[in-house]
Amino acid sequence: MEQVVIIGSGNVATSLAHGLVKHCRVMQIYSRQLAHARRLADAVGCENAISDLSQLVQDADAYIIAVSDDVIADVIAAVPDNGALWVHTSGSKPIDLFAGHRSRYGVLWPMQSFSRELVVPLDDVHFFAEASDAASLKDVVGLGSMISRHVVAVDSAQRRWLHVASVFSCNFANHMWTLADEMLTEAGLPFDALKPLISTTIQKLDHMAPAQSQTGPAVRHDKEVIASHLAMLDGDKRDIYDMITQSIMNRNPKDGHAQ
Amino acid sequence: MEQVVIIGSGNVATSLAHGLVKHCRVMQIYSRQLAHARRLADAVGCENAISDLSQLVQDADAYIIAVSDDVIADVIAAVPDNGALWVHTSGSKPIDLFAGHRSRYGVLWPMQSFSRELVVPLDDVHFFAEASDAASLKDVVGLGSMISRHVVAVDSAQRRWLHVASVFSCNFANHMWTLADEMLTEAGLPFDALKPLISTTIQKLDHMAPAQSQTGPAVRHDKEVIASHLAMLDGDKRDIYDMITQSIMNRNPKDGHAQ
Repeated sequence: MEQVVIIGSGNVATSLAHGLVKHCRVMQIYSRQLAHARRLADAVGCENAISDLSQLVQDADAYIIAVSDDVIADVIAAVPDNGALWVHTSGSKPIDLFAGHRSRYGVLWPMQSFSRELVVPLDDVHFFAEASDAASLKDVVGLGSMISRHVVAVDSAQRRWLHVASVFSCNFANHMWTLADEMLTEAGLPFDALKPLISTTIQKLDHMAPAQSQTGPAVRHDKEVIASHLAMLDGDKRDIYDMITQSIMNRNPKDGHAQ
Repeated sequence: MEQVVIIGSGNVATSLAHGLVKHCRVMQIYSRQLAHARRLADAVGCENAISDLSQLVQDADAYIIAVSDDVIADVIAAVPDNGALWVHTSGSKPIDLFAGHRSRYGVLWPMQSFSRELVVPLDDVHFFAEASDAASLKDVVGLGSMISRHVVAVDSAQRRWLHVASVFSCNFANHMWTLADEMLTEAGLPFDALKPLISTTIQKLDHMAPAQSQTGPAVRHDKEVIASHLAMLDGDKRDIYDMITQSIMNRNPKDGHAQ
């Protein structure tokens, strides 16, 4: 894995390019928009930015597809097999997108929420690897191991579960903060007031499972507080409060819990 | 505020006692169970542990009620007014619990999720103060300011909103991690794999509002991924996925969002 090509110039491609240039030669960066490919290529010191898939070099060891989920199949179909290793980086797309189009292929999914605003160091990001065959899996893991200390081989079913779990852990937790932000803004209070509480909630995850560290009116079955909260809320905030409270209560029967 | 009495020996009382002994004299610690009062008193070097409210000293400057929400009113009723400042530390209970029972009173609510397992430094905890009158408010804020750099005066309505917002931010976000943990355990994967993702999600809060940093299938209106996730889930996980996804989509109309 000494020479790689990166297909894409978005959030994931940007993070991967920054990580990979330290450990191997990034031969080309492709984007549908040449300016985007060039900007990323310049940022990481890669000589070759292209916007036409027919210009792809043929002698790279690996081709990393880091484009939007819905155009991965188009990229695969647009380029004939060259015998090299091809991987996509999607958490939700099946490895089978390559079947019949490539001889050696895999998935190298960085389970992380990338954004242009925050450059994430990849060392601690967990990468999940999957491949068409044992030799290719070794190469996919090797590719990931250049940039991360946490590369784990998983099967397709496990990757699907990891993806759903990441939606709950990241997107849905973040939405809880969005709803809290809306409430506080309306009450003339800054969201920042919640940050120490959020930090502590996360620190607890280092000491115990989230189910064990749960606090609040739902786990206490504090019906009076729950009723007063529901009376303050409306719309989807009320529905969400009600549903999650029930879900917490169901997992913590009143007689079985000390709190 | 040179001499205080702490009524309670649970999570909140424990954190407050540890913070306060550095800055003032903790004259007494009360618990219904003498052994609990004594354990906390010994831990913070307070000479006087009691389990009978009639033994309360009369000459403290402030009496801090840090007991379970549902027994605050009993404590107030059991002790006659002595003209000192009395505060409770509940996020959800009204200040009016004191009305007619005390002449000077207030609320000093540390918005934090305390547990015996993790001792939280109070300096960065946000305390919200409320009082019966302007002079008492000054004293309540002064009491809080001995142990925290963030003491903010709020009215009852604002405190109620802060409490609901804290349930969403802390308890409900934590429940999202509980559900993710359940899924991963079933798939034979460790919850730890999600921690870097969770950390990044929180780090983003320092740079932008949670609504701005939202990622994932819901904000992208990625119906294919959403349908595949729903097909994997059942029970309350499915209902919660569906409801929160709708809530995110409603706040991010497809045409108004770049992602």
